[in-house]
Amino acid sequence: MSIPVSGRLANVATDIDPGGPRLTERGRATRARIVQAAADQMFRQGVAGTSIPDVLAAAEVSASQLYHYFADKQDLVRAVIAHQVELVLDVQRQFPLDSLASLRMWRDAVIALQDRRECQGGCVLGSLATELADGDEAARAALADGYAQWEQRIRDGLVAMRERGDLRPPADVDRLAVVLLAALQGGLLLTQVSRETTSLRIALDAAIAQVEAETVAQSG
Amino acid sequence: MSIPVSGRLANVATDIDPGGPRLTERGRATRARIVQAAADQMFRQGVAGTSIPDVLAAAEVSASQLYHYFADKQDLVRAVIAHQVELVLDVQRQFPLDSLASLRMWRDAVIALQDRRECQGGCVLGSLATELADGDEAARAALADGYAQWEQRIRDGLVAMRERGDLRPPADVDRLAVVLLAALQGGLLLTQVSRETTSLRIALDAAIAQVEAETVAQSG
Repeated sequence: MSIPVSGRLANVATDIDPGGPRLTERGRATRARIVQAAADQMFRQGVAGTSIPDVLAAAEVSASQLYHYFADKQDLVRAVIAHQVELVLDVQRQFPLDSLASLRMWRDAVIALQDRRECQGGCVLGSLATELADGDEAARAALADGYAQWEQRIRDGLVAMRERGDLRPPADVDRLAVVLLAALQGGLLLTQVSRETTSLRIALDAAIAQVEAETVAQSG
Repeated sequence: MSIPVSGRLANVATDIDPGGPRLTERGRATRARIVQAAADQMFRQGVAGTSIPDVLAAAEVSASQLYHYFADKQDLVRAVIAHQVELVLDVQRQFPLDSLASLRMWRDAVIALQDRRECQGGCVLGSLATELADGDEAARAALADGYAQWEQRIRDGLVAMRERGDLRPPADVDRLAVVLLAALQGGLLLTQVSRETTSLRIALDAAIAQVEAETVAQSG
């Protein structure tokens, strides 16, 4: 149990926000609305292109409400990173990648999403990473941690394949997880630039082929 | 022959800048210094994080000098894109990628460069692409054209391998060129976030392995 930072919140039904004060349900909803609005704006316009007034307007909150939850823009950016990491992990949870069929469903879903978005936006983490990695060390570390969790989730699926006997025992699942994640990131970038999903499909197909080359059926 | 936009430049020894006025040698040098300074700043701080006063200070020119060559910041950004495309193509020219040995030398050089840069900055085109692709259609189109030229240069090496008989005739060099470029882009992003080059090496090794799988020695 963490200790509430403010006495006036001590007896209220709460949820614990990592590192922050306990919040009422209404407080949580307001905070979540601010983070969602900021995440949307930063995804579309970049972090530098998103001002606090933009976020206030989109979230329909006052400046005093925003500064009740966030010390400054950097603090809000940190919350946006945590939000986008959760989003990526939630989506990945729907695709366990523990079979070639699951890998192909994931590939198709990723491509379909880019088609729906008209190939705009790229990766929600990748765009934050490119903008923030060199200038904001805390943001870079948070993004590195997010990518590490994402890679771990991909690896978990491959480990399950190996334990089930679908992959040959010496299959290097650490390496394959990086190959899949790098293909996704590179493919998304090329797709964002070219406005069509061919490169993304080719990159993901090539990465999945590397997994397939390690399947037992291919080993004989 | 293009027609000089300014009569006073008409009789001067000139070089033709694509789409722009003829420039004296000194004018070309000044323009190049402005573009180089802007490219450096935008690579380090992003386009949004680079102001015209930043560029003036770095290039040691006056505002009137800058606006003699560039209508506005967007015009300068376009020149920076052209500059970075040329840089990427120049570097790629040193690595023809027309043999497995050349592919591996390229991989090692890319990794060594990231080590020298302490894994900062990512790809000079990729960072521009992430920031500009969704908000500046002319910039996106220029970047897409730059990536297409880059992909073509990679493909040229693979075509040379195939013509020499090193790759099997049905080897899909279009696909392999995309696999190599996507692995580079994704690997550079993961390296920029994690501050170490392991992911970049794994991604490039996997892509090169795909080329190797198409070599004649591997086909029997």
